[in-house]
Amino acid sequence: MVDKRKIEKLEKLARLIRYLILVSTTGAGSGHLTSSLSPTDLIVGLLFSGIFRFDVDHPGHPNNDRLIFSKGHASPLFYALWSAAGKVTEEELMTLRKFGSPLEGHTTTAFPYVEASTGSLGQGLSIGLGMALNAKYIDKLPYNTYVLLGDSEMSEGSQYEALQLAAHYNLDNLIGILDVNRLGQRGETMYGHDLTAYEKRISSFGWETILINGHSFPEILISYEKALQVSNKPVMVIAKTIKGKGVSFIEDKNGWHGNVLNKEQLAQALKEIGEIDKSIRVEIPKPEDLKPEKYVPRKAKGISYTTDKPVATRKAYGYALVRIFPDFPTMVVLDAEVSNSTYSEIFKKEYPERFFEMYIAEQNMAGTAQGLCCRGKVPFISTFGAFLNRAFDQIRMSQYSDANIKFVGSHAGVSVGQDGPSQMGLEDIAMFRTILNSVVFYPSDAVSTDKLVEEAAKHNGIVYIRTTRNETPVIYSKDEEFPIGGSKVVRSGSKDIITVIAAGVTLFEALDAYEELKESGIHIRVIDLYCIKPINKKALKQAIGATGSILTVEDHYAEGGIGEAVRSALAEYGMPVYSLAVQKMPKSGKPEELLDYEEISKVAIIKKIKELIREEKL
Amino acid sequence: MVDKRKIEKLEKLARLIRYLILVSTTGAGSGHLTSSLSPTDLIVGLLFSGIFRFDVDHPGHPNNDRLIFSKGHASPLFYALWSAAGKVTEEELMTLRKFGSPLEGHTTTAFPYVEASTGSLGQGLSIGLGMALNAKYIDKLPYNTYVLLGDSEMSEGSQYEALQLAAHYNLDNLIGILDVNRLGQRGETMYGHDLTAYEKRISSFGWETILINGHSFPEILISYEKALQVSNKPVMVIAKTIKGKGVSFIEDKNGWHGNVLNKEQLAQALKEIGEIDKSIRVEIPKPEDLKPEKYVPRKAKGISYTTDKPVATRKAYGYALVRIFPDFPTMVVLDAEVSNSTYSEIFKKEYPERFFEMYIAEQNMAGTAQGLCCRGKVPFISTFGAFLNRAFDQIRMSQYSDANIKFVGSHAGVSVGQDGPSQMGLEDIAMFRTILNSVVFYPSDAVSTDKLVEEAAKHNGIVYIRTTRNETPVIYSKDEEFPIGGSKVVRSGSKDIITVIAAGVTLFEALDAYEELKESGIHIRVIDLYCIKPINKKALKQAIGATGSILTVEDHYAEGGIGEAVRSALAEYGMPVYSLAVQKMPKSGKPEELLDYEEISKVAIIKKIKELIREEKL
Repeated sequence: MVDKRKIEKLEKLARLIRYLILVSTTGAGSGHLTSSLSPTDLIVGLLFSGIFRFDVDHPGHPNNDRLIFSKGHASPLFYALWSAAGKVTEEELMTLRKFGSPLEGHTTTAFPYVEASTGSLGQGLSIGLGMALNAKYIDKLPYNTYVLLGDSEMSEGSQYEALQLAAHYNLDNLIGILDVNRLGQRGETMYGHDLTAYEKRISSFGWETILINGHSFPEILISYEKALQVSNKPVMVIAKTIKGKGVSFIEDKNGWHGNVLNKEQLAQALKEIGEIDKSIRVEIPKPEDLKPEKYVPRKAKGISYTTDKPVATRKAYGYALVRIFPDFPTMVVLDAEVSNSTYSEIFKKEYPERFFEMYIAEQNMAGTAQGLCCRGKVPFISTFGAFLNRAFDQIRMSQYSDANIKFVGSHAGVSVGQDGPSQMGLEDIAMFRTILNSVVFYPSDAVSTDKLVEEAAKHNGIVYIRTTRNETPVIYSKDEEFPIGGSKVVRSGSKDIITVIAAGVTLFEALDAYEELKESGIHIRVIDLYCIKPINKKALKQAIGATGSILTVEDHYAEGGIGEAVRSALAEYGMPVYSLAVQKMPKSGKPEELLDYEEISKVAIIKKIKELIREEKL
Repeated sequence: MVDKRKIEKLEKLARLIRYLILVSTTGAGSGHLTSSLSPTDLIVGLLFSGIFRFDVDHPGHPNNDRLIFSKGHASPLFYALWSAAGKVTEEELMTLRKFGSPLEGHTTTAFPYVEASTGSLGQGLSIGLGMALNAKYIDKLPYNTYVLLGDSEMSEGSQYEALQLAAHYNLDNLIGILDVNRLGQRGETMYGHDLTAYEKRISSFGWETILINGHSFPEILISYEKALQVSNKPVMVIAKTIKGKGVSFIEDKNGWHGNVLNKEQLAQALKEIGEIDKSIRVEIPKPEDLKPEKYVPRKAKGISYTTDKPVATRKAYGYALVRIFPDFPTMVVLDAEVSNSTYSEIFKKEYPERFFEMYIAEQNMAGTAQGLCCRGKVPFISTFGAFLNRAFDQIRMSQYSDANIKFVGSHAGVSVGQDGPSQMGLEDIAMFRTILNSVVFYPSDAVSTDKLVEEAAKHNGIVYIRTTRNETPVIYSKDEEFPIGGSKVVRSGSKDIITVIAAGVTLFEALDAYEELKESGIHIRVIDLYCIKPINKKALKQAIGATGSILTVEDHYAEGGIGEAVRSALAEYGMPVYSLAVQKMPKSGKPEELLDYEEISKVAIIKKIKELIREEKL
């Protein structure tokens, strides 16, 4: 039985929230009014009925329930809720969508009660999954994670990735709230108001589903109570709602997705909403004051590298994870069903409790990582560099959520060999370079990989580590340091006529070219650009000053890679930067054959340098 | 009733195919042997039983049935099938995975019977969807499209995007064949041999499902016959198979995903396969010799632009589609539920029969476009530039399939304004520049947009067109030409001290800066770089020769965009290229405020140039 007075209070609150949504969007002159009105009752019912537990003065409390608006455009509702909770004044609400206001067009972490920035649809459920995974398996805390989903965004494949993994991990602490308001941006959704269409799909993935009228508080409250009683599986509350609910002349009407009311319409709408009580205050009950489970990883046996034994950097990555884990116990390792290729399986074997198999579903892996790092974890997530492209949109969005995720892409470049182009990461450097303040590492040997994995763990931010399929010689001693933003001059002399800048596999091609050129009396400098971003401008400037020009050589497409990074660093100096990169359609073949074919091998380096000499450019 | 002699012949053929898979993979020394053996009976039963109709001498016949290996790593099976069909000799088969051979590690279009390159998992069903859509709604031909799927790849969200859209469009000519061999790359899949787990999920999306033993020819043949009788919905044949089937010591064993047999193991395996008959020849029945429906779009009313009325380039895109369609009747327009924002709805209203709503599922939209262009269509596909990131992996793969797809991304840059960072395409130029031989257009006004859409349609290849949310002035006359690889000098004089290179919204900032600087006696050249790739090297060289240095200004992140494209074009000339780009965390605000904040506005251009003058660099 639902308490009648409680219902009345919720109805009052919902009126207040609708009022705030209406005035703030009309004030802003744009925004998603109707998408905010449809889930209002659902979220008022969650937040203000005693079900949601949250210490409003400590949004970071480890045992707070979490709420994510996957439909980030319902931000006016989100801000109005926290206004009702006393955390945003009406005056502040009126800064909605204005420059400098934390109340942005789609929810972002500029507003302290936002867990993660959303607005690119179909991402919130994966983020929630990461938080729920954290609660159940890592922090071992009883908090619940709620995700508000739009019906239109259910067409994103990423949703089904999240659905399957949440069920796979029995996340009964994850509750989705699906706001089926029938209308997308440009018209009706694929399934309209057919709740059973969603029920069939979602339950087929192993979720419990509860169908309700999303504007009936008794149904809403009962659904949450039921949801909290379900064990061993996640729950989706599927609610029939009306887009624009509460304002008769926009209810269930197409064409209002991105529109707000003008002043006359607002006056009319407020009349319909009726009397509101601004003095009404809500109490959100605090969660139990519990702390995350303490976890102290035992030390594992180390590995040491010797110059007589080549090691693939992807393998060194796996060993490095194991080595550093005791010093970084907030680490969590995820992989997309290729842990025997990325070698994250080395970590998995040692610390299975901190490894999560994410299967071939890279978008959800990236979203889960975001959720984990919202809860203070440091996720290392790996797959082939090529397949990280699958998660570009999640990677892009993570930069707007202050992410602290370490992405690791193996099988970089054409040196993958026989498997052919589909498996070759040839645009990964370009992709990760576009991310604001990202760090991009490309180690050449096992020692530098080992050190760079540790640097990645130390650094608070987005880091990409590019690893190589095949074994490469160990060239560094274990005392060498590899700071962020550094590079290594590996060959140099006073007679150097050009600096060759390489990284990863091409470093060894450059070293071979160095030897062969030396025999014909041509001296070159060789730099290992193990950190592509931020780039070591000072060292590049020094090198170009000393040798007059630069030749970059990379196993990556010409655009957005090492060549362009070096050019940008030196753009203002006006010195020539030549480059060798992958520029022909790659194919299957032996790695050496492909490096030659793409003209990024020793042979190509020597040829290019001799050509420049002939043309009197050196 | 299934004919006994037919079954015996198929069994014989399956033995031959298994023999060919075994010898070719052992010969190659690598490859996916076990993943090829599990679907052998399924595909032998399809291709050689009379069900599949294909003119082997005319693989491009418009009424051929189509077969796509979404699990592209089963390529040894694919090549062996065409060997049995007499199209590849055993000697040629032995070039598998070797440099220069069309028999690549994962199926690519280098081999003429491959419809589209695969190998990045979870993409084949969308490609098949495009082909089936073509058959049913465009060419109106009775051919069927078959897609072989792996069980492990069913975890990719893109699969569910394809499942929902195929059902939405009632594609009863699309038949999936799901090879449930239980094992992924590193171990068991999420659902192992539980066929009903797949049945539940797939049927929930509106597909017919048929469960069979994938090694029983009677069941296989009956399933295809049944599938062909289903109307109004697509069908998935869900087959229980054994990974490595036919070779006892690798059957259903983990650890054999990427491994092949050594010579001793091969001898043992061939003994198990038993006697094979190399003389056996197969007949694949030809399809009816039908031609695609002729379609002549009627001319629609044109629109003309005048310099007194600003128009958003996104809107000009919609009008351009309508204008050019009668001249390019193979065009098909797709959109991901934002046609009222990208303005592809202008085309939809005029030619609804050639517009397909793809809902918010960008990966499937890109895959569908690939399928359409495999069948000779020219797809224009649009969404926000930011959300095309979602399809990066499909875009990447399309370059390996000789794609002829036109991607259109609206809402480019921070000039999107109030909606905030989640909606801003700020890495789209970088992404599309990485694609081999891609063309990247960024029109500034309605006239150039109109012309560039036509250029895109004319060009055979991947084209990206970047459009802007807000209105911009019309600056070009309708007689102006905008060839691929061109640029426009829009302001110039003999006293120019620097060339400002801009495109899209920043062109207008540069023009405003020009006026203001002129008043203080500072003359600048302004170039509209409407085509970012291929870049107009000659014009850039001329400009830098004449003015001494260059300043690029772009509404895009600094990496991989216009600045780096220009630097790469001029890298060997050793002249300074300064640049202004988005380098701070974007936020909500008015477009003008954001351009100022990111220092890519008129104010920033003037400031930078005055700074360079002060530093005596100009």
